[in-house]
Amino acid sequence: MNAEKIPDIIIGRLPIYLRALQRLADQGIQNTSSQELGEIIGISAAQIRKDISQFGEFGKQGTGYSIPFLIERLREILKLNRVWDVIIVGMGDMGHALARYNGFVNRGFQVTMLFDNDPGKVGQVVNNIEIYSTTALVEKVRQNRIKVAMLTVPASAAQEVADQLVKAGVKAILNYAPIHLNVPADVRVQHIDPATHLQRMTYYL
Amino acid sequence: MNAEKIPDIIIGRLPIYLRALQRLADQGIQNTSSQELGEIIGISAAQIRKDISQFGEFGKQGTGYSIPFLIERLREILKLNRVWDVIIVGMGDMGHALARYNGFVNRGFQVTMLFDNDPGKVGQVVNNIEIYSTTALVEKVRQNRIKVAMLTVPASAAQEVADQLVKAGVKAILNYAPIHLNVPADVRVQHIDPATHLQRMTYYL
Repeated sequence: MNAEKIPDIIIGRLPIYLRALQRLADQGIQNTSSQELGEIIGISAAQIRKDISQFGEFGKQGTGYSIPFLIERLREILKLNRVWDVIIVGMGDMGHALARYNGFVNRGFQVTMLFDNDPGKVGQVVNNIEIYSTTALVEKVRQNRIKVAMLTVPASAAQEVADQLVKAGVKAILNYAPIHLNVPADVRVQHIDPATHLQRMTYYL
Repeated sequence: MNAEKIPDIIIGRLPIYLRALQRLADQGIQNTSSQELGEIIGISAAQIRKDISQFGEFGKQGTGYSIPFLIERLREILKLNRVWDVIIVGMGDMGHALARYNGFVNRGFQVTMLFDNDPGKVGQVVNNIEIYSTTALVEKVRQNRIKVAMLTVPASAAQEVADQLVKAGVKAILNYAPIHLNVPADVRVQHIDPATHLQRMTYYL
């Protein structure tokens, strides 16, 4: 296995496999096949086998995959066999929703700090987490060696905040602002923009 | 142009191009090139040219693309030269955040109805939009010929609500619940699941 050479498009499918496998495990199911998994998530069995085989031999012909084993290996590959501290910058509606979101539990992430530039919000507590001033952002991120951030500030502020996050050592940004961020090559950015997701579907209507 | 044959992966990039073009237009810029666009969004110029050429000849060698013209064509291709009514089902934190979200303006969508199964929420108004009971979902969706829905209910309820949406005629679902939905082939589903986006980045940390 040469981790550096695996295309990002394959890496992007691994969390989807993991989510489906965890759901099967929650139902008490111990084994699955690429066919079954493919039907659940709408990806071809051949694609799933090919993707997973990039990381070694996990399945047995005839018996398929052991779900607990494959989950463990996927968590290891995706570096989820630990909990990553995550910060949220921008405590508007979306920041609040994410601070209270319970979908990160057991998936490798824990929101530990919140930031906003509005003095009226600083000091408030959301889901037992305090909102700090963005003036303290770089210092607190460095102190706590935060590597992962969710960015829920307005588009007009997003690049400036992203620059601060990068300066402070953040290497993964989930960007909710509908603009492209310019970051160094060693920083990953993923976008969540509901309008682009909707636009991708209206084509077919 | 044979719309049916264009791979979904290309369709998925068009809203990204459109977003970047609209941002350039907002800055008063009239022309761009695949090189410039590629630098803004981190996709190769060759890929952009290839994607756009699927739909006809838009660029001129040497002068590049006319931004207003390309925006108009992309909006036409993606069926965004109209405003789609969108409903939100599930008025928890995420439903509230989406109901108040201002990122749909001028991007082809307008949230027109909200639904929740909690009698305590029914009748409330969020961003001037009334929350209806999910018992009225099928009727109201049919009456108003709604085709697009955002699903922000808990994972345990998502499939059941999706079934109702499909029954009522919805053809595009933006699913915030972290489960795969089973829908007929003529219904499109897109997922927004912040944990999978984060997991795709931790691989590189």
